Amino acid sequence: MSTLPAGLDRWLSERRDQVDAALQAWLRRADTPGPLARAMEYSVTAGGKRLRPLLVLAAADAAAESLGAKPEAAMHLAMPAACAVELIHTYSLVHDDLPAMDDDTMRRGRPTAHVVFGEGMAILSGDALLTEAFRLLAREPEAAPGAPPDLAARKLETIRTIAEAAGAAGMVGGQAIDLDAAAPGAPPLDVAGLRQMHARKTGALIAGSAAAGAIMAGAPSAVVEAIGTYGRHLGLAFQIVDDVLDVEGATADLGKTAGKDAAAGKPTYPAFHGVADSKRLARESVDRALASLAGVNIDGQLPAIARWVISRTH
Amino acid sequence: MSTLPAGLDRWLSERRDQVDAALQAWLRRADTPGPLARAMEYSVTAGGKRLRPLLVLAAADAAAESLGAKPEAAMHLAMPAACAVELIHTYSLVHDDLPAMDDDTMRRGRPTAHVVFGEGMAILSGDALLTEAFRLLAREPEAAPGAPPDLAARKLETIRTIAEAAGAAGMVGGQAIDLDAAAPGAPPLDVAGLRQMHARKTGALIAGSAAAGAIMAGAPSAVVEAIGTYGRHLGLAFQIVDDVLDVEGATADLGKTAGKDAAAGKPTYPAFHGVADSKRLARESVDRALASLAGVNIDGQLPAIARWVISRTH
Repeated sequence: MSTLPAGLDRWLSERRDQVDAALQAWLRRADTPGPLARAMEYSVTAGGKRLRPLLVLAAADAAAESLGAKPEAAMHLAMPAACAVELIHTYSLVHDDLPAMDDDTMRRGRPTAHVVFGEGMAILSGDALLTEAFRLLAREPEAAPGAPPDLAARKLETIRTIAEAAGAAGMVGGQAIDLDAAAPGAPPLDVAGLRQMHARKTGALIAGSAAAGAIMAGAPSAVVEAIGTYGRHLGLAFQIVDDVLDVEGATADLGKTAGKDAAAGKPTYPAFHGVADSKRLARESVDRALASLAGVNIDGQLPAIARWVISRTH
Repeated sequence: MSTLPAGLDRWLSERRDQVDAALQAWLRRADTPGPLARAMEYSVTAGGKRLRPLLVLAAADAAAESLGAKPEAAMHLAMPAACAVELIHTYSLVHDDLPAMDDDTMRRGRPTAHVVFGEGMAILSGDALLTEAFRLLAREPEAAPGAPPDLAARKLETIRTIAEAAGAAGMVGGQAIDLDAAAPGAPPLDVAGLRQMHARKTGALIAGSAAAGAIMAGAPSAVVEAIGTYGRHLGLAFQIVDDVLDVEGATADLGKTAGKDAAAGKPTYPAFHGVADSKRLARESVDRALASLAGVNIDGQLPAIARWVISRTH
């Protein structure tokens, strides 16, 4: 994180702490049987970049600024969505790591959930994280004096956006394409197929996170759409960088097994384009993300976050 | 089904056809990659009693009648929730049947999803069914001329109710208790623990289904609560009957392996109370369900459905 500008670094780390505190508070408020609660908390508190919730909050902040609204109010409105997308991201990692899927034993530097709690409890903890995300979105923030009159409509639109990003047309659909392509005898993905797979598997929830922040802040639909487009391009850049890191990074830095995709014969951007051209593609994707913001005069921390994504080393 | 009064039989079978048609239409509307779409449709179209969606619709119908509202309008408002609870019930069966959970190879007279599509795709199809349920609840019915002015609030309350019933405090929580009690060396559940486990695992979603129908029809909160209480008692009766059928029924009738719970040493109502007293407990639970409805002057098809639940043979 040393490559970050100091202002962004502080902004991100303050928001990350707020998200972590809100996540823990939410998890503990639910009436959850002990073993399930421990499995859920284990995965949620394993750390991670918190990219998706930070995008929710940064998008809400930037949208509020452009509307002349108070940033604190936008944070309050968007925090449940920030937590929800992290719960969803976490569940997807827990299920993705299962023996029947990627069969990963290490994640974020710790044994994966099924190694610690068993496969059955890992599956259930993922199911519970996903369901609790929607419970949170439906419940919070509660209508209270001073709340926007269209709060219920914003919440419904946020639920719709996040469910679409996470569901059959989005994240889970992308995982299914990935799994199907890895089946014995299946034809390998070509460049277009790889891009399509990643657009769903990673891009959709990143784009949905950015859009959700804008929706909760009350942005008009053109701004929501432009911020969603920013998120889609950012998601592609993020995935390319991830593929490059998988080739270049060391296991200790990543907190997960490096070179695993290549070893498994999975298609990656560097495999198709080489490392140098992959990095160029990531930069171009970030440029497109920034152009989408500029088109509606939105900035805040969003441009800096996009640059952070391609400068990261883990 | 020969024990059903003809009027209820026709009502149930007409509604069941409507739910089946709506479910298929919804699944096909999503932009879902082929293998995932096939796995989702396989499980959703496997049949089943459709108890939960029928409860949603019957509760909406009964609530509308007591409000003097048109039953067709209530059906339209409640149909998305009816489909959503069936999607959630179906996902829970798919995950419950996995080798890491109950390890069942037959369900509703057909091979289970993981036998046909593989474990990974079965896990993903469950994840997608759960997510699509919330997408459906957030989207439909759309606001249109003639829609109730508080439609958004009803939808949010329905999402909250169903997420609570399906999540860590409800269905998934119950499955976690069940799984945990089956672990080697774990103390077996006592009567209270068994009841608690079933109240979450089966009762919560049945109660949530009934409550959701009432909410979508615009029932006042006292009626929603009474219908939810009816659902909780009905859920307990349903589970007791399920346990009795597991002891008494033949595999062909049930479409799943009979005597499996007893063989696995799982606690059941007949194991604690014997078959005759278990049947009496189920009848008493139905009586309490009916009393809850009578307290708010609600009937419609709800009392007959409660009686159907304890008269069923599969």
